[in-house]
Amino acid sequence: MEIFSYETLKKFSIQVFLRMGCPKEQAELAADALVAADIRGIDSHGVARLSGYVRLWEAKRINAKPDIRIVHQTPSTATIDGDAGLGLVVAPKAMEIAIEKAKIAGTGWVAVRNSNHFGIAGYHTLKAVKQDMIGIAMTNASPLVAPTFAVEKMLGTNPIAVAIPALHEPTFVADFATTTAANGKLEILQRKNQDAPLGWIQDKIGNPSTNANELKQGGALLPLGSDREHGSHKGYCLGAIVDIFSAVFSGANYGPWAPPFVSFLPLPPDPVGVGLGHFIGAMRIDAFRPAEEFKANMDKWIGRFRATKPAEGYQKVLIPGDPEREMEIERLENGIPVVDAVVADLRALAEKLEVDSI
Amino acid sequence: MEIFSYETLKKFSIQVFLRMGCPKEQAELAADALVAADIRGIDSHGVARLSGYVRLWEAKRINAKPDIRIVHQTPSTATIDGDAGLGLVVAPKAMEIAIEKAKIAGTGWVAVRNSNHFGIAGYHTLKAVKQDMIGIAMTNASPLVAPTFAVEKMLGTNPIAVAIPALHEPTFVADFATTTAANGKLEILQRKNQDAPLGWIQDKIGNPSTNANELKQGGALLPLGSDREHGSHKGYCLGAIVDIFSAVFSGANYGPWAPPFVSFLPLPPDPVGVGLGHFIGAMRIDAFRPAEEFKANMDKWIGRFRATKPAEGYQKVLIPGDPEREMEIERLENGIPVVDAVVADLRALAEKLEVDSI
Repeated sequence: MEIFSYETLKKFSIQVFLRMGCPKEQAELAADALVAADIRGIDSHGVARLSGYVRLWEAKRINAKPDIRIVHQTPSTATIDGDAGLGLVVAPKAMEIAIEKAKIAGTGWVAVRNSNHFGIAGYHTLKAVKQDMIGIAMTNASPLVAPTFAVEKMLGTNPIAVAIPALHEPTFVADFATTTAANGKLEILQRKNQDAPLGWIQDKIGNPSTNANELKQGGALLPLGSDREHGSHKGYCLGAIVDIFSAVFSGANYGPWAPPFVSFLPLPPDPVGVGLGHFIGAMRIDAFRPAEEFKANMDKWIGRFRATKPAEGYQKVLIPGDPEREMEIERLENGIPVVDAVVADLRALAEKLEVDSI
Repeated sequence: MEIFSYETLKKFSIQVFLRMGCPKEQAELAADALVAADIRGIDSHGVARLSGYVRLWEAKRINAKPDIRIVHQTPSTATIDGDAGLGLVVAPKAMEIAIEKAKIAGTGWVAVRNSNHFGIAGYHTLKAVKQDMIGIAMTNASPLVAPTFAVEKMLGTNPIAVAIPALHEPTFVADFATTTAANGKLEILQRKNQDAPLGWIQDKIGNPSTNANELKQGGALLPLGSDREHGSHKGYCLGAIVDIFSAVFSGANYGPWAPPFVSFLPLPPDPVGVGLGHFIGAMRIDAFRPAEEFKANMDKWIGRFRATKPAEGYQKVLIPGDPEREMEIERLENGIPVVDAVVADLRALAEKLEVDSI
């Protein structure tokens, strides 16, 4: 494990994106979105994925100079084609359009096709909050999840993020995979050679499993709820809704046709759309109620929930966004720990691309 | 248990709503919304609740002749005041407004305050589907659910429903409480004097419990995910988002201030808004992509998911909406079984209100 500053990781990422051929502004934007994951403690989605993006670019599945364009629109909606660009760049553009729509129509909703993985969903929602809007972001992803009663991997971990502004209290930010556990948590267990809790994964015939490597042996991640008795059909519904909003609205690949993040896996044959899909929304809070009134009530909501009596053995009840906010403060001060395997990977990347190493 | 036809239960409900003073059209609409729960197999939300609505009316918490009006709007949004009307009447009006907004702006979003329980969320979404739109409905509700790490009941079971039209395939309808199990399922266990599965409820100090009567002894329902290790913080996020969209947007009561459904519980002191809140949405599918193209892809989505290889011991993988659709066909043919306690309750109601009994 080595410690790096936020600035170091961001500068390094900018160099890599520039080397891929991204225009300067887009390289900076992509790096900002990527390293937002590291600083907020979602290590699986930050610089650990950088070499993966590069391999997709090498395989010509990522276009470093995309011509992102609107292909369909109404006053409150748009569908955009990401031209196979980095999701880290395409999603912010989609949010920009959603915000512009919301300024005029009250809300803005943008379906995105022909994109790639967009980093952490929460990052994209925060741009709306700065405009006194609620931000919403979701994306489909490579199939890893079996629907309730199934053994085939049909859905991605399909995250949903919603950010809601308050007045004096910090922003409410929910950002979660629609599975019991995110794939990144499973990867951590794999690296440590540890078992997973029952309820996260199943084996290839659908039995509960604790083997963190089960996905490589025909197993699957489970939808939020784990099993039918504990509501996995609801997690399956959520993952399905994200898939349909992100990919059927936009004309991207859905379900098992969603392209894999890893470049060594071939693209599924007979695609049903182009690339990955996202769905991005912005709702002006003053489209429903005066903004100050809304935000004062959010303060009251947050204050009351923070004051909830904790269960025995717990210190406090959290507001969505608290853990990542605490991590950000801690890591801005003390730096970001990066595991050895990722450090080695980034240094190899630096050598290959001939950019300054971290 | 006695069996009644759909028509019998609906006619009876219309008589009751008329007797409360609802205008004819609204009585018919309310009955249609209410008995939609019985015919689809969600027995807890149908005629079993009829006497509860009447008691709220007797307690002057429901206004049978509401003046439902728009208090704030933009091209794609509106906030409406339900004037303490039946949610069964207010929510359809909100969806009507959402659909009209969507026709012009592409999408329509309506926040509702000063309403009451609106029956099953899914019912309201289906009106949008008839217009080639995606329908969305959510509502906050009486506090029964403890956030992750907490023992206080702070949120309702806060359901989310999303209905998505297809071409030849039936409509995709997801409709679920954001808890591990809906309260109605717990009530069934209470009546049968059976234990609940671990993961549905906790006792008053936050320990897992199988006692189906735990809620009456200071316990709480658990958010979808059951515990932190299995993602209950995600269920808590979902319930919180529904609460904020339904009640903070609109100016209704949120969190622990949400009014109880049962008339014998007093309204919480120091209300933070008026009545219950809902959030209703309609998105034109052709606001994103030509409608035929979207629906043909939904057929493909549904067909592929239906063909998913089932786990050992299971016959088939379901599409959201399948179980309720199968139940509706079965009950339209063979009638709706109503448990004795509810039959007795309805007959007592008939006597009290002097309407024809079932």
